[in-house]
Amino acid sequence: MSAASVLSSVYEGTRESNGVIQALLTDLYQITMAYAYWKSGKMDDRAIFDLFFRRNPFQGEFTLFAGLEECVKLLQNFRFSESDISYLRKVLPPHVEDEFFQYLSNMTANAVTLSAVDEGTVVFPKVPMITIEGPLAVVQLLETPLLNLINYASLVATNAMRFRLAAGQDKVLLEFGLRRAQGPDGGLSASRYCYMGGFDGTSNVLAGKMFGIPVKGTHAHAFVTSYRDLREVKCRNLFRKDNLEKVDFIDLCLVWQQKLSSILNFLVDQVSEGELAAFICYAQAFPDQMLALIDTYDVIKSGLPNFCTVAMALHELGYKPRGIRLDSGDLSYLSREVRKVFKLVANSFDVPWFERLTIVASNDINEDTIHSLNTQGHDIDCFGIGTHLVTCQKQPALGCVFKLVEVNDKPRMKLSEDVEKVTIPGRKKAYRLYGHDGTALVDLMLQPSEDPPSLGQRFLCRHPTMESKRAYVVPAEVQPLHHEYWKNGEVIRDLPNLTELRKKASKSLQTLRQDHKRTLNPTPYKVSVSSNLYTFIHDLWLESTPIGELC
Amino acid sequence: MSAASVLSSVYEGTRESNGVIQALLTDLYQITMAYAYWKSGKMDDRAIFDLFFRRNPFQGEFTLFAGLEECVKLLQNFRFSESDISYLRKVLPPHVEDEFFQYLSNMTANAVTLSAVDEGTVVFPKVPMITIEGPLAVVQLLETPLLNLINYASLVATNAMRFRLAAGQDKVLLEFGLRRAQGPDGGLSASRYCYMGGFDGTSNVLAGKMFGIPVKGTHAHAFVTSYRDLREVKCRNLFRKDNLEKVDFIDLCLVWQQKLSSILNFLVDQVSEGELAAFICYAQAFPDQMLALIDTYDVIKSGLPNFCTVAMALHELGYKPRGIRLDSGDLSYLSREVRKVFKLVANSFDVPWFERLTIVASNDINEDTIHSLNTQGHDIDCFGIGTHLVTCQKQPALGCVFKLVEVNDKPRMKLSEDVEKVTIPGRKKAYRLYGHDGTALVDLMLQPSEDPPSLGQRFLCRHPTMESKRAYVVPAEVQPLHHEYWKNGEVIRDLPNLTELRKKASKSLQTLRQDHKRTLNPTPYKVSVSSNLYTFIHDLWLESTPIGELC
Repeated sequence: MSAASVLSSVYEGTRESNGVIQALLTDLYQITMAYAYWKSGKMDDRAIFDLFFRRNPFQGEFTLFAGLEECVKLLQNFRFSESDISYLRKVLPPHVEDEFFQYLSNMTANAVTLSAVDEGTVVFPKVPMITIEGPLAVVQLLETPLLNLINYASLVATNAMRFRLAAGQDKVLLEFGLRRAQGPDGGLSASRYCYMGGFDGTSNVLAGKMFGIPVKGTHAHAFVTSYRDLREVKCRNLFRKDNLEKVDFIDLCLVWQQKLSSILNFLVDQVSEGELAAFICYAQAFPDQMLALIDTYDVIKSGLPNFCTVAMALHELGYKPRGIRLDSGDLSYLSREVRKVFKLVANSFDVPWFERLTIVASNDINEDTIHSLNTQGHDIDCFGIGTHLVTCQKQPALGCVFKLVEVNDKPRMKLSEDVEKVTIPGRKKAYRLYGHDGTALVDLMLQPSEDPPSLGQRFLCRHPTMESKRAYVVPAEVQPLHHEYWKNGEVIRDLPNLTELRKKASKSLQTLRQDHKRTLNPTPYKVSVSSNLYTFIHDLWLESTPIGELC
Repeated sequence: MSAASVLSSVYEGTRESNGVIQALLTDLYQITMAYAYWKSGKMDDRAIFDLFFRRNPFQGEFTLFAGLEECVKLLQNFRFSESDISYLRKVLPPHVEDEFFQYLSNMTANAVTLSAVDEGTVVFPKVPMITIEGPLAVVQLLETPLLNLINYASLVATNAMRFRLAAGQDKVLLEFGLRRAQGPDGGLSASRYCYMGGFDGTSNVLAGKMFGIPVKGTHAHAFVTSYRDLREVKCRNLFRKDNLEKVDFIDLCLVWQQKLSSILNFLVDQVSEGELAAFICYAQAFPDQMLALIDTYDVIKSGLPNFCTVAMALHELGYKPRGIRLDSGDLSYLSREVRKVFKLVANSFDVPWFERLTIVASNDINEDTIHSLNTQGHDIDCFGIGTHLVTCQKQPALGCVFKLVEVNDKPRMKLSEDVEKVTIPGRKKAYRLYGHDGTALVDLMLQPSEDPPSLGQRFLCRHPTMESKRAYVVPAEVQPLHHEYWKNGEVIRDLPNLTELRKKASKSLQTLRQDHKRTLNPTPYKVSVSSNLYTFIHDLWLESTPIGELC
């Protein structure tokens, strides 16, 4: 491409101008199958697919369901453009009939029904997160985009939720992952779904603008290294907050530096003058939001003294600084040392709030780091988390699958040598049963004709594949898990906003017993089927097993 | 959000309508720093930042540089919209001056110069992939989007290159990762940069349309399970290829089933009739492209016999099927069994090409799987790779950093207790020195005033930090690594298209010695500095070291 023509071509991105992903963002085999279905007159067979996963991520025992709103919008906008059709004509063999391309260009998802668990609900293996019903060729085409929209959203939301559990409710969690995400859109999804999973904010400004997520951030090491000495502070002044009297802020800082050096026991000629200059400039710009990154040179000998110097000068002018950030070193040790110094300053100058200044930590933190910091002890108030959160380093993919379970009212089942991989065929209803204390006891799938369990009555819940595993459950509450979201070409159930989803997610997690949530050897939450469904599955399984096999 | 209003809001995605990412896709601290620079009159200080990484990914010793074109386009389009400014007014404190927002709304990257290694070049730690020079506040704002665009692109391109090295040049490699990528855009980036790294095609149709990548795919398990028996094959016919004579294709298949059952030793009543029906329908749709997924039920007892049945019937009508895909089980064993059967059919019916039918494998394959298959022996011609490729499971983030190295002609350096983390300050020139056989010997960084090494003359190359590591190199070729791509508001160097970049990448990799490329304990490629630059770094280092420290 010549330099001049870089931008001459029309961009066709992953999303249409309304932000919904393009129908063509799919695997080619969905198109070739659509043609084969069409060719054999099977395209309108009534099919049901279940979207589910087989194992919770991160060696945990829960998953947060996220991404549904984007799926519903996909259905609402599902259409192949003229240029899509032209492209497909080039890709498919020349014998493919015009009528097929006509069929594709008229295709919508209006004959499709999408039922799903509410977004922001904790979900478990085997229970469909989404069930989608409609003309075989259409629902087949939806497989790839639906998986794409659910897989990462649910994975990263679950990851965020695990960080929240590790850090505890009283810590502030910020997502800083944009630079390490899978491109621009990956970064935006990460911000959105981490907030849903329980984070408090993001550094990603566009995510703030688009989704109303609180945005946070102060400055980088480069800001500090860009200053060499105090001569670079071009304006020396700051106004006193109450009476706007102009004060020489540099002089004031130097006075405080002297006062503090004996109390904090630092050497004035060992602190970095460039760092002090940077903090002064940052304080002049954000006198009431001063949060300084103090590890560019040496936390104890330079960064912390410089911060205290500027913070006390701000205090004298009536401002209240925020705190500091640590981005390297031993976070347990350093955070406690910092807190000690804050306490010392607070006591020495009778500024009690100084002791409670915020300590942010942000150095390549993962879930295990937080658990380890908890064990060692630390004084961190806020974690800024990037790479490990957004890339889900511990397990970078959730294995959601999309399985055909019924065609024209006849159940379908893919056999597998691995019993865990056998799908649960046919249309199903799913409920979550709760105990008297509001704790989730078990998820239960039934055949469509069956009545849900009655409150206060015992109901036999069976393991889907293991004969001997069964138990009576007496539910105090029975909650249907699936709701129709899209039917007859319309969105028929409200899609809550992100803040509502975030609250919902937190509430949903609270219904889980602690032992399902712990990091080490969590107890699997039980997913069960009714006796009728159990028999149905196993009869069908037997029927599909080749003669002569030892089942 | 109510159901009706789902799509009422204007979408503001990560990219503008021309596909370039938005200026607001950045970390908030870039904006707060911009304000602090502006406030202290430092925003136009002339700054130089280097973008580089410190360690190659995947425990390897090379990285493929990718993502440059998107960076150049970012600069070309870098602008804050009115609605961005309105949003920033809400986010920043109320005291922030109107003049600052005016400054932001007039901001462009026209005063920025971007130099870079050519995209599609193999690169190494510490050598800047991109050097960007311009007004401090502007180049600081570019940090996050540049890192976002380079990090994943280079990581996944490198991963693809490693899969190519593992599989060998004669295998076909297809990228199947869309459903497991970080959302739609992540999937598209994966397809684009895997192709650059040496893959032959993708399943991602939109990537095919946008970037001209060959798209590949046949059918899924659902296609097979959607058929129960031969009665579902609504049209029985297929036309003979040469004379278009209509033939009952089902009958023909059943004849071939009988013929083959004795030769291949399978039981007609043990093959799945639904699977046979599915293969027949697929063959009717794609008689010259028939590639069947044969592991839905049982590869040996059902899938393979059914494929051979339909394939020989197609052959009788003058068509040539493509082959089979295996998506589960022991790929080494199964691929060899399949090849044996292909050979047997080829010999029994004198159809020599049958032996060379394509065997595709696609079951959760990673780099180690391919190495293990190579060791065990296999007969796979083509690998379809998804999750592990696009999520880069082995290491899901490349740690690119963006470091300030110079302000107003004065070098800058962030100290670190970890010597490997010390940055190389100041403006630098970089060259790659080659030997007589075209092998890359060493990368060499010089001070701007220094002349590059002369051909055939010895030049002392020094390790950037370790005193004792040095060697004379006599280059047969000296290649400048950096070129200006963006200057004075214009793209000034051609941006090759994806196919050219793919060729370039493959050539660049060929210049590396085999021991740098091997999987187990690869030899690190040497990155060096001139004696002058070495002295410069170490003098500056000493100068920045606090008094009283044992360096």
